[in-house]
Amino acid sequence: MKPETYLRRMGAVRSALAPSGVDLCLISPGSDLAYLTGYGIPGDERLLVLALGAGEAFLLANELYREQVKDLPVPALVFWRDGEDPYDTLRDEIRRRGGAAQIAVSDTMPSVFALTIASRLGAALRPAGFLTRPLRQYKDEEEIRAIAAGSRAADEALRAALAPGREWIGRAEYEFAGELAREMRRRGLENPDIHAAAGPGAAVPHHKTGNALIADGSCLLIDFVGSHEGYYTDMTRTVHFGPPDEEFRAVYAIVLGAHLAAEEAARPGNLLEDIDIAAGEYIAARGYGAAFTHRTGHGIGLDVHEGASVMAGEKTPLAPGLVFSIEPGIYLPGRFGVRIENLVAMTAGGRKTLHAFPRELLVY
Amino acid sequence: MKPETYLRRMGAVRSALAPSGVDLCLISPGSDLAYLTGYGIPGDERLLVLALGAGEAFLLANELYREQVKDLPVPALVFWRDGEDPYDTLRDEIRRRGGAAQIAVSDTMPSVFALTIASRLGAALRPAGFLTRPLRQYKDEEEIRAIAAGSRAADEALRAALAPGREWIGRAEYEFAGELAREMRRRGLENPDIHAAAGPGAAVPHHKTGNALIADGSCLLIDFVGSHEGYYTDMTRTVHFGPPDEEFRAVYAIVLGAHLAAEEAARPGNLLEDIDIAAGEYIAARGYGAAFTHRTGHGIGLDVHEGASVMAGEKTPLAPGLVFSIEPGIYLPGRFGVRIENLVAMTAGGRKTLHAFPRELLVY
Repeated sequence: MKPETYLRRMGAVRSALAPSGVDLCLISPGSDLAYLTGYGIPGDERLLVLALGAGEAFLLANELYREQVKDLPVPALVFWRDGEDPYDTLRDEIRRRGGAAQIAVSDTMPSVFALTIASRLGAALRPAGFLTRPLRQYKDEEEIRAIAAGSRAADEALRAALAPGREWIGRAEYEFAGELAREMRRRGLENPDIHAAAGPGAAVPHHKTGNALIADGSCLLIDFVGSHEGYYTDMTRTVHFGPPDEEFRAVYAIVLGAHLAAEEAARPGNLLEDIDIAAGEYIAARGYGAAFTHRTGHGIGLDVHEGASVMAGEKTPLAPGLVFSIEPGIYLPGRFGVRIENLVAMTAGGRKTLHAFPRELLVY
Repeated sequence: MKPETYLRRMGAVRSALAPSGVDLCLISPGSDLAYLTGYGIPGDERLLVLALGAGEAFLLANELYREQVKDLPVPALVFWRDGEDPYDTLRDEIRRRGGAAQIAVSDTMPSVFALTIASRLGAALRPAGFLTRPLRQYKDEEEIRAIAAGSRAADEALRAALAPGREWIGRAEYEFAGELAREMRRRGLENPDIHAAAGPGAAVPHHKTGNALIADGSCLLIDFVGSHEGYYTDMTRTVHFGPPDEEFRAVYAIVLGAHLAAEEAARPGNLLEDIDIAAGEYIAARGYGAAFTHRTGHGIGLDVHEGASVMAGEKTPLAPGLVFSIEPGIYLPGRFGVRIENLVAMTAGGRKTLHAFPRELLVY
């Protein structure tokens, strides 16, 4: 992104402060800070915040991070050193700019920072999500292009990782995850995070990739994310090694049908919840309602989960700029699970599915 | 860890509440929750908290996490579903147990959760670190054994990753990182996080592993962590490809000398700061004081950085149970950097260095 993009975004937050009765917005490392400045390094125990108020904006960081922040498009940089108290420095810099009684802090700021800021600065706090979330929810063309490019790279990486086919039988989930991560890196995807779940592990929605073996006559669920130019892609496929039994085939067909019904519901004029309702009703009508245990999808961008969810009660209209996942699943504890996930972007020209990898059952 | 260990730890937090004027402690996913219950999954946007107060302890989680929490040694489990408001459920469960006006929340709890809890429950918050930090800072034998085993595995993984020697020349940092991650996984280390910095990148303390190539006539700094039974190990070595010039050799010798001086200062009767002072004075006396830009080390355990730091002003006595890093470095921007890091544990029998990998300069 160009410096002008970041300056525009910071300006949008600053101009939203006064109408909401907030004097200052403090943003710590995380996706809000990446959105506003391009700074993409995770936070640690050393206080680092961007301060946006009526006075000159500034970034407070430990001296150790000088190299990483020196080129950010922020008007002023303020450093503290190990052994110094960064809250003193923060208070002094804010006072020099007129002080702040009402402060919004980024949603992900660790509580220990936020509560210390509140007590040391004598300020009232509230979460800053209401300032950044509306901006981040509607992506511009450049942002959608980044997510689409990452999604195509993910398609290709998965194809390459699955190419050995039955050679994967007898190898561990983490070995497959390692190979897929390598294929992602080769295609420019950063921060790969892969859930590879073999057999019964696929029935646990938040299974942890481990030493379980990929087995003949069993499934492998692969849910993976990676980032391209800071923006995440996210997809899931469930494949089978050896001929699947009838129930697996039937469940797979239902999940695929639900996925296609949900995709069809992602059209201008509908709300986000309509997508969830379409998937849910499709699965419930076929007797597996209780086995579809989660919402149909989530917004995505600089965070894997961001903005409004694809779930019942979510009345956000499907306007251009929304990007979200469609990922219905059926989970049979102790046996197997199936999930199929694509990303979809709403554009001026309607729905755009960002993946090309087949959704039909692949059997090795 | 046995269930009794977790019950004892939860009991220790609960018995510290009343003396400090706190009615309830709420712990969200992160290392405090892992310490208290064994739950080791990262948090997401769905509220999940352990509540420790005068009444029966309970864990509130989204229904999606039932499988992951059902065997935790917590007296009561309370679930909410997507679409419901978890803060209502939390408030009701706390009221049923007598309510809470003063609540301590885990240091890493995202502010959006903490601030919403404060407003929805009408409670005053403070960080919970003062309750968990003293417990976590002093490790028992089982904890030290886990860190020591992980450190030995890290030694072996690094040896294996470096075995191809000069074959690494011309390959990218991320390829080395990928290979080291694989060797770590093979030895049972989880959550590998590797900073591989080639040449000038080694001069940036928080460099990000990327596409920079490992070059002949240049250094490679490898700083990596991984966990074993939930406990982290952390080590750094700086190696050289091709014959190093005189200044690199001189700088390396100074960093090694500082490392050994710091290690020598890690003895019963001294304070944590004495280790930092020993390293700092050694480097300053040789003219590179300004190029040693960070503290000498950090506590480690369920978090890579936890507890008291090895830095000036840190008066914690070197009592049995402390585990920390010793990692002096010299960074010459635009040219190269050298850091050598081992973990050290203080035990009843004195200092114990947890790594066996050579600290002397390795040239390939």
